[in-house]
Amino acid sequence: MVRAQQTDGELWLDAGRQARTGIAEAVYAPGKTPAQCAAAVSGLLADTDGPVLLTRADPAQAAVALERNPGGTTADRTLTWRPLLRRSGSALILTAGTSDLPAAREARAVLAAYGHDADVVADVGVAGLHRVLAQRERLGTADVVLVVAGMEGALVSVVAGLTRAPVIAVPTSTGYGAGLEGVTALLAMMASCSPGVTVVGIDNGFGAACAAVRILRTMP
Amino acid sequence: MVRAQQTDGELWLDAGRQARTGIAEAVYAPGKTPAQCAAAVSGLLADTDGPVLLTRADPAQAAVALERNPGGTTADRTLTWRPLLRRSGSALILTAGTSDLPAAREARAVLAAYGHDADVVADVGVAGLHRVLAQRERLGTADVVLVVAGMEGALVSVVAGLTRAPVIAVPTSTGYGAGLEGVTALLAMMASCSPGVTVVGIDNGFGAACAAVRILRTMP
Amino acid sequence: MVRAQQTDGELWLDAGRQARTGIAEAVYAPGKTPAQCAAAVSGLLADTDGPVLLTRADPAQAAVALERNPGGTTADRTLTWRPLLRRSGSALILTAGTSDLPAAREARAVLAAYGHDADVVADVGVAGLHRVLAQRERLGTADVVLVVAGMEGALVSVVAGLTRAPVIAVPTSTGYGAGLEGVTALLAMMASCSPGVTVVGIDNGFGAACAAVRILRTMP
Amino acid sequence: MVRAQQTDGELWLDAGRQARTGIAEAVYAPGKTPAQCAAAVSGLLADTDGPVLLTRADPAQAAVALERNPGGTTADRTLTWRPLLRRSGSALILTAGTSDLPAAREARAVLAAYGHDADVVADVGVAGLHRVLAQRERLGTADVVLVVAGMEGALVSVVAGLTRAPVIAVPTSTGYGAGLEGVTALLAMMASCSPGVTVVGIDNGFGAACAAVRILRTMP
Amino acid sequence: MVRAQQTDGELWLDAGRQARTGIAEAVYAPGKTPAQCAAAVSGLLADTDGPVLLTRADPAQAAVALERNPGGTTADRTLTWRPLLRRSGSALILTAGTSDLPAAREARAVLAAYGHDADVVADVGVAGLHRVLAQRERLGTADVVLVVAGMEGALVSVVAGLTRAPVIAVPTSTGYGAGLEGVTALLAMMASCSPGVTVVGIDNGFGAACAAVRILRTMP
Amino acid sequence: MVRAQQTDGELWLDAGRQARTGIAEAVYAPGKTPAQCAAAVSGLLADTDGPVLLTRADPAQAAVALERNPGGTTADRTLTWRPLLRRSGSALILTAGTSDLPAAREARAVLAAYGHDADVVADVGVAGLHRVLAQRERLGTADVVLVVAGMEGALVSVVAGLTRAPVIAVPTSTGYGAGLEGVTALLAMMASCSPGVTVVGIDNGFGAACAAVRILRTMP
Amino acid sequence: MVRAQQTDGELWLDAGRQARTGIAEAVYAPGKTPAQCAAAVSGLLADTDGPVLLTRADPAQAAVALERNPGGTTADRTLTWRPLLRRSGSALILTAGTSDLPAAREARAVLAAYGHDADVVADVGVAGLHRVLAQRERLGTADVVLVVAGMEGALVSVVAGLTRAPVIAVPTSTGYGAGLEGVTALLAMMASCSPGVTVVGIDNGFGAACAAVRILRTMP
Amino acid sequence: MVRAQQTDGELWLDAGRQARTGIAEAVYAPGKTPAQCAAAVSGLLADTDGPVLLTRADPAQAAVALERNPGGTTADRTLTWRPLLRRSGSALILTAGTSDLPAAREARAVLAAYGHDADVVADVGVAGLHRVLAQRERLGTADVVLVVAGMEGALVSVVAGLTRAPVIAVPTSTGYGAGLEGVTALLAMMASCSPGVTVVGIDNGFGAACAAVRILRTMP
Repeated sequence: MVRAQQTDGELWLDAGRQARTGIAEAVYAPGKTPAQCAAAVSGLLADTDGPVLLTRADPAQAAVALERNPGGTTADRTLTWRPLLRRSGSALILTAGTSDLPAAREARAVLAAYGHDADVVADVGVAGLHRVLAQRERLGTADVVLVVAGMEGALVSVVAGLTRAPVIAVPTSTGYGAGLEGVTALLAMMASCSPGVTVVGIDNGFGAACAAVRILRTMP
Repeated sequence: MVRAQQTDGELWLDAGRQARTGIAEAVYAPGKTPAQCAAAVSGLLADTDGPVLLTRADPAQAAVALERNPGGTTADRTLTWRPLLRRSGSALILTAGTSDLPAAREARAVLAAYGHDADVVADVGVAGLHRVLAQRERLGTADVVLVVAGMEGALVSVVAGLTRAPVIAVPTSTGYGAGLEGVTALLAMMASCSPGVTVVGIDNGFGAACAAVRILRTMP
Repeated sequence: MVRAQQTDGELWLDAGRQARTGIAEAVYAPGKTPAQCAAAVSGLLADTDGPVLLTRADPAQAAVALERNPGGTTADRTLTWRPLLRRSGSALILTAGTSDLPAAREARAVLAAYGHDADVVADVGVAGLHRVLAQRERLGTADVVLVVAGMEGALVSVVAGLTRAPVIAVPTSTGYGAGLEGVTALLAMMASCSPGVTVVGIDNGFGAACAAVRILRTMP
Repeated sequence: MVRAQQTDGELWLDAGRQARTGIAEAVYAPGKTPAQCAAAVSGLLADTDGPVLLTRADPAQAAVALERNPGGTTADRTLTWRPLLRRSGSALILTAGTSDLPAAREARAVLAAYGHDADVVADVGVAGLHRVLAQRERLGTADVVLVVAGMEGALVSVVAGLTRAPVIAVPTSTGYGAGLEGVTALLAMMASCSPGVTVVGIDNGFGAACAAVRILRTMP
Repeated sequence: MVRAQQTDGELWLDAGRQARTGIAEAVYAPGKTPAQCAAAVSGLLADTDGPVLLTRADPAQAAVALERNPGGTTADRTLTWRPLLRRSGSALILTAGTSDLPAAREARAVLAAYGHDADVVADVGVAGLHRVLAQRERLGTADVVLVVAGMEGALVSVVAGLTRAPVIAVPTSTGYGAGLEGVTALLAMMASCSPGVTVVGIDNGFGAACAAVRILRTMP
Repeated sequence: MVRAQQTDGELWLDAGRQARTGIAEAVYAPGKTPAQCAAAVSGLLADTDGPVLLTRADPAQAAVALERNPGGTTADRTLTWRPLLRRSGSALILTAGTSDLPAAREARAVLAAYGHDADVVADVGVAGLHRVLAQRERLGTADVVLVVAGMEGALVSVVAGLTRAPVIAVPTSTGYGAGLEGVTALLAMMASCSPGVTVVGIDNGFGAACAAVRILRTMP
Repeated sequence: MVRAQQTDGELWLDAGRQARTGIAEAVYAPGKTPAQCAAAVSGLLADTDGPVLLTRADPAQAAVALERNPGGTTADRTLTWRPLLRRSGSALILTAGTSDLPAAREARAVLAAYGHDADVVADVGVAGLHRVLAQRERLGTADVVLVVAGMEGALVSVVAGLTRAPVIAVPTSTGYGAGLEGVTALLAMMASCSPGVTVVGIDNGFGAACAAVRILRTMP
Repeated sequence: MVRAQQTDGELWLDAGRQARTGIAEAVYAPGKTPAQCAAAVSGLLADTDGPVLLTRADPAQAAVALERNPGGTTADRTLTWRPLLRRSGSALILTAGTSDLPAAREARAVLAAYGHDADVVADVGVAGLHRVLAQRERLGTADVVLVVAGMEGALVSVVAGLTRAPVIAVPTSTGYGAGLEGVTALLAMMASCSPGVTVVGIDNGFGAACAAVRILRTMP
């Protein structure tokens, strides 16, 4: 990610990242002033070609960044400038509960910036199994599936047994106590009994979307 | 549990445990010589009224214990003397994989010693959801359900969403790596999104059966 | 649990949960606006038959939820609409200290919503053993016992040695330092030397009550 | 995975898994007798259509399985019957050290069973960066990249910055001390600064290959 | 502790330790050859005045050490030369189970070497509370109490509530699974609700005895 | 500890604790209203004979408690009513840094309530070894030594090698990062190479003082 | 470190530390009042000869300390009085991201106080490898290299493979989720595959600089 | 490290490592056959110029490696071919106990291969402080100090307070129980109160020596 200009040290804009990896640097807002967020976005718009993202922005950060960099759009806490054109390949994002929605929406916004549609279906936790079973048809045709879940993260094991698509699991820090702020879900997803599940970091909707972009761009 | 006679210290046989708790002391074989196992069984047979159990016995421990205490029966690694008469109330024991069977069988043997039938249905892990869905009718009529699973332990969340019965989860140390020898399953079961799941210690089929006995004896 | 209406994703009300498991969805208040809490309660009242619970509500959440959904009652931080009629089967809830009372009261309120009485006896920690010993008679007649304790959670081992009833342990995050926010109690309860103890998640009075409901409803 | 026939419990062969997920059940050898391994392979050959795999077999298990089920081939500790025809889409597997080779080879064998070629390039750890830099061209054209590394797992962050392909990281339990048997690599890969890295369980070459198969089968 | 002579490095015998701390160096046998154990004992006998201890010796180590250093006595796995004369001040050692006896016996042997009597009362775990309650009189008169327990270590909280004496807790690595090889007991004892409990390392009967010696020597 | 009166549950004042253990219940202020603190103190003053302590009180809690219960004295955050008469036996309390002083002062105030003097010597961390070496004479004559230290807790190993007195270590949560909020010090103190060190919970100056009182009261 | 004057306990100024170790005591500001900070600085200026540092000061602490102790200079949150003259030997400080700059700047300020120059090059994380490769020449001539990185800390393994200089790694608590507040980076740096990496505590720029001073002062 | 030739994958000998970092690849023996060890040594001797090391070799590995590669020398479990000429700059290696000697000796052998002398002084643990104090003069003149310690690792904090030299700490996995196989020492050393301590991985004498070589080569 690119950060705001610093007066010491040498800021190193990784301008070639999109060319190398297909995914441009993004600006992670927490810990930056609104002005720093805006400046980082400006820098990326000037020096790179690809989509520019500002993630986890609070309202003040978003307002200044949008004002100084016209043309951006906002989805929840993710701001996007210069999105790629719509391409084939789309993602299905399932969440166990509604409190997993922030990570799901971050993933959807990042996918959109890279030209991929994503449907979010919330609240299909395995305690009421009919909800995920009702997604079987969609799971059969999805290009890639993201499963966002906290607590024990069981949804990913069920989903991976119902689809041929690549499955990316996002553990979330929702819940309290024995969920250990996402560590329980992380470990459980890692140890999933369903073969072929892959996992990204806790609450890392951004990373899951990047992984999905890497997969979707290979689609015909 | 009762252990073999010691020459120092004062061995304290908890003869009243069955009266107080409905569950007699049992002999845990690991770490004892065959002679110590046999002596502990003899002591319990002499000083108490209830069932006498020798758990996790290896063949040598089992052989000596049976020889010196006629009338015992063997189920897997659990030996039983003086079981209670068959009573109403039975358990359904589901395992995610076949490697979870030792804990499941220990639980079944302990339940049998206290007069309760238990059916073991192995290999109904959620990666192939139709297997557990095929148990829906049984789950609807079970008096109590034990779910034995390692790795991510997701089976218990699915099962608890399909039954009105009490659900007791047994995390197992099966698998490798991110399963962390059962700790991942333990945490995941604790954090289950399905309300009303209770959990016992890792690989503790004995404890799960005791918990089930506490429940089943209240049945009409 | 049901959450407030979301403009994206599809909210999946698990209307059949009570039929399947005997326990309806509940609304977990933290992280929701008062309006979202109220709407979720309204949704459940409209689409389901059973008790509707709003748990861990702060005063603002409680006020709005009650105003928009008449007929609710409040017990501590738990609100209940449409409780079940009083049935047989009651719980005894023991706490080691008074700081364990919030989880105990949450459990009592949930049990009440499902028609079961529960007595809370606080402050019977094992440092003063006469307090728990004074409960022996009650322990002898209780249908199910909940033990709520933080720190080292020793109370559950003592209690389980004094009763034939099912015992459900609730580790709490009370205390500081070596209690590790409830993890120490969780592990200790899991490793209890008293056979037949089962454990739910840290501070999870709701879950313990659900487990108790699963047991109590089988009582004649 | 399918296991050897058991005399109790009901063995549940997930015959439809390949149809649902594109990946058939496999037999995990550790903990089974040679006869059980052979029987499980026989069962899968009889009841399913797809590739049949026996993983982590020791020489005795392999010998009996091959004798009773003619037509199998052996690659390291993985045995394959009835592999799929060669399809387009291939994987590049990089390892940080030669001690990471067992997981890399397991992945390659599983990919081969599903019709995909995989090249293993060992010993490109970042301490000698020229080695991974020499792979840049291959990384530019790979369909999917697996990175197998223990210790601090830094290789995956470097690789993901050099390729547009999907990247699947396999933490291994190689090394000693602060590597914590793979947990350090697992956490480090999860926290990778390179966007779009996904991770599977410790030493789980099988799972990484399954994830790659899910991706590769979508390739034109 | 003193170890066997080494050909490199400079072996540093802490000859003044008994004068400074009242407790002489001891020889910890594991990892040493029988000859090294014997030589270390010889060195301590030659260069110091106080008791000489060889702890956790296996039979071969014990045999050689005794043969080359006449006058030693053996108690379980602890060997003693030149014990102090019997003094006033004695310890009461309680264990939760018989598998805690090795640490209890090590503590008793070390106390004996320093002139203090110790009674070991085994098997007074809190699952059968009458056993520890039967010790109330002894607990009322004990000079110092050691509580040796694994699993959840609850015994120490009960004991500390029944005595005015100093209480030293020894967590043991007995049991399996959720006991986490003594870590659960260690944490639980640290978090004990009974004020004034102190704790030593896992299985460290030697250290507990040394702590008791520090206390007992101040007795009139 | 005694807590404020509760309207439900039955408050169980452990009035006999001082008779049994020599240490009366104390009131732990955090989480209580000033009125609850004051009421708990009143209750103890009325129903027991011994010292009454209110620990970790903030200024508001202290003010109300003192106003409603005349005769109390304040030392840092610990308030005392009805202290015992000065007895023989005193403690030396060493801290590694000045940020360890709160726990040291809590210990001193508790000791004072039970009639024992305690000197606090701060800032004798082992980075400047002359400071602790300058305490050698005091260490030689101390009745009991408390060592309060965070970070790596090395001070206790040095101190225990310089004194014959009982040594009680108090790990503190001072510092940041690798100190892991006191867990590092706790583990290090547990694993101390100096024999005879005992440890209490993190920041638990109260508990350390109680342990010291148990020791000091036996002094002639 | 020296702290503000305390009314009890005896403050032990380690005036000889610089003579013994070449590094004087420093004042760690967090937890002290501005007046305490200023007094501690005054004390060190009066009683020692070397540089005096106040670290992690907030603006209020800095203002009072500077006002009462003229002649100090401020760099970020580190204040310095009486720095040593410029000596030969300088450090190169690399950071993976800009959020690692606070620790890097603390290190630079401490090095400056001891007469050593340090260049900070920020944002050379391995996701864009050309950035660190562009430092190869500097790495070839640096006297000592500090690598400051959070998340997975992979930068240090790459850097240590590119330089002959001593390499000191500083794990930082930047990032969220699987970074575990710096523990992941700490472990990963410890397990680095590049030989000769040494590590200091999380966020400990001060300690890394002190380690560098120990090295640089030996330079000709 | 270089490993034995593999028939698949491409073995990547990092021939330039010594030129880049001053430290050549080494062969880590565990997990290799004697023939593989010998071949790896042969390869390094043929393709590089610098010292060739085989570490942690058992007698069989050592015998074959020496026979096939004449001219090697053995020190404990480390074998060296083609050592560098003796240069200025030497290390002082202190161990807390004799069981820390294997890591100390590995470090000494690696230092010798790079031309640096190292003295090992064993058994100077802080429980008998006079032993390390007797090293003060040596500590005053040492070029670099390695401190090898398990258990609580307190020695490093004391040593770093007594010397101006760079201090490298090696946590070891000696001891049992609360030492947590070296993790306790690792954390404690990381959190050392003495400024300027750096730490390497558990039991990593090789890495500590490499770090020392990086420092010593800069000496005039």
